[in-house]
Amino acid sequence: MRTRILITIGDINGIGPEIILKSLGREEIAKKYDITVVTPVSVFEYYYRLLHLKPVKGMFKIVTIGNDRIKINPGKITGESGYVSGLAIKTAVELCRRNEFDAIVTAPISKKALNLGGYNYTGHTEMLTDLCKSKDSVMVMVSKKIIMGFASTHPALKDAPKLINREMLASKLGICYKTLRNDFGIPKPHIGVLSLNPHAGENGQIGREEIDIIKPSMVNIRKLHKKLKLEGPFPSDAYFAFKIYNRFDMTFAMYHDQGFIPFKMIAGLKGVNFTAGLPVVRTSPDHGTAYDIAGRNMADEASLVEAIKTADKIFKSRKKSSSS
Amino acid sequence: MRTRILITIGDINGIGPEIILKSLGREEIAKKYDITVVTPVSVFEYYYRLLHLKPVKGMFKIVTIGNDRIKINPGKITGESGYVSGLAIKTAVELCRRNEFDAIVTAPISKKALNLGGYNYTGHTEMLTDLCKSKDSVMVMVSKKIIMGFASTHPALKDAPKLINREMLASKLGICYKTLRNDFGIPKPHIGVLSLNPHAGENGQIGREEIDIIKPSMVNIRKLHKKLKLEGPFPSDAYFAFKIYNRFDMTFAMYHDQGFIPFKMIAGLKGVNFTAGLPVVRTSPDHGTAYDIAGRNMADEASLVEAIKTADKIFKSRKKSSSS
Repeated sequence: MRTRILITIGDINGIGPEIILKSLGREEIAKKYDITVVTPVSVFEYYYRLLHLKPVKGMFKIVTIGNDRIKINPGKITGESGYVSGLAIKTAVELCRRNEFDAIVTAPISKKALNLGGYNYTGHTEMLTDLCKSKDSVMVMVSKKIIMGFASTHPALKDAPKLINREMLASKLGICYKTLRNDFGIPKPHIGVLSLNPHAGENGQIGREEIDIIKPSMVNIRKLHKKLKLEGPFPSDAYFAFKIYNRFDMTFAMYHDQGFIPFKMIAGLKGVNFTAGLPVVRTSPDHGTAYDIAGRNMADEASLVEAIKTADKIFKSRKKSSSS
Repeated sequence: MRTRILITIGDINGIGPEIILKSLGREEIAKKYDITVVTPVSVFEYYYRLLHLKPVKGMFKIVTIGNDRIKINPGKITGESGYVSGLAIKTAVELCRRNEFDAIVTAPISKKALNLGGYNYTGHTEMLTDLCKSKDSVMVMVSKKIIMGFASTHPALKDAPKLINREMLASKLGICYKTLRNDFGIPKPHIGVLSLNPHAGENGQIGREEIDIIKPSMVNIRKLHKKLKLEGPFPSDAYFAFKIYNRFDMTFAMYHDQGFIPFKMIAGLKGVNFTAGLPVVRTSPDHGTAYDIAGRNMADEASLVEAIKTADKIFKSRKKSSSS
């Protein structure tokens, strides 16, 4: 049986609809996976006409949401688009939890539009975690060359250090350990942990989080998970300069740009965002709504295609691990 | 006339003495530049014997400091080593300001040892700025592929955002503009500015520094320096993923790891640290004391060699620009 993948439409004024149609236009995608899109029907009609796209190969299904008089304004942040993007996520989680689908792939949303649309979340990860009633989750970036877990998602830089504490690291690294075992099929995962401060704090000279929080937390986590090999905290610049990440199954970053700068330099356009720790499998492309090029037939579907493939792989790995 | 370059010994328990001797062992260095090392004499004797190095090619000079009974303990942080490393810097600045030398190249120091040795500075950049009685300076990383200026040097991550304000950016970017013109010979410099927050703050959704500080500051700076082209603030992950830095003469980073992670990934082992905004020309290798390999003949002198070459280039460019 083909994996039943549910794609949420994302922000209807962004590049989501375009990259979904382009992905479905690829034979390898339309044939290999059983794909359903959660969307108002009118969105596809609109972008088909606007972009002069060739029809998709093979069959795909739609779960319709919203109504047909929805206003589409490529490039604009509107409450209406935010409402639809939130409704698609909500619907997808419900259908997955009822076991009607195997995995969710989400097209990009605008956090601002989402909030205007009445969903008070800071992003996909937080919304999905709440809808799944999960205690915690981890944003994980996946590529063939590197897998990266994050201590936090997208806080302002000044807030990122405040979020780091021992309980949080224990929870996040515990999720990383389990996801590497169950979702990536690695029985004895090896994780490299980055430091928060430059030069790993230089023995407390420039920041004490490594000494007071990260190292003691790592000692505790090692005791909890006997099959986990945990190393660090590494000075992050040397870690990437000397490609130390090649020794690890996963690199764990302390904040967004610390991880995303090197991840995107290493993975190129093929990065996939995966939310670890949820009962549903959820992936997404690693880019945003790209309002500046929305409706102009300029968007590249490569990352969404990878997100679909990765969701399939993770679903199968998880199924295998739960049956063994 | 060959450029008169003064090399400070750095921390005598780190890899400084070893990479200096190895650099002087290269014919291209010993012959092309008029090199003098500021050091206690016994340090060279000690490492010559310990490392079984071949004698240096050609001639070099020594300015002796300290006394001959100084204790050398490879890999150890001591007040004695910190005292000597600070004294070397102090002596070098004095000699340069008296015009007896053209440029200073500093071998790595330990901030902790420096403080134990009685010099209350957070690093080379701060110490040199104070000794030169300069109001401000900018840490600049130089390589053939990318030049990067930094808003701050090595604060703890939690302190980095607090240091960003309009006056500070005006001062730092003004220094960057002048150094690109005078020290790098670029008449109309083009600088790409990174944002502080992930996704450049997403219109204020995740951090307001881009809106409240960085953008208004850039408007003012453009008015002050008519020949400066200033763009940004860019989301830092996309900036490096899409190699947007190739469009600019300099990239300006808001904090240490944001700049150093991609810089080292792009420049490899050949990065050079340059302090812009000082009356003396000062460069250094882009690595630390590497205590873990000190005294083991494992250190690579590549970055120090580049630091010497870069100091020479900058001195000549500055001389040319001041005489034109």
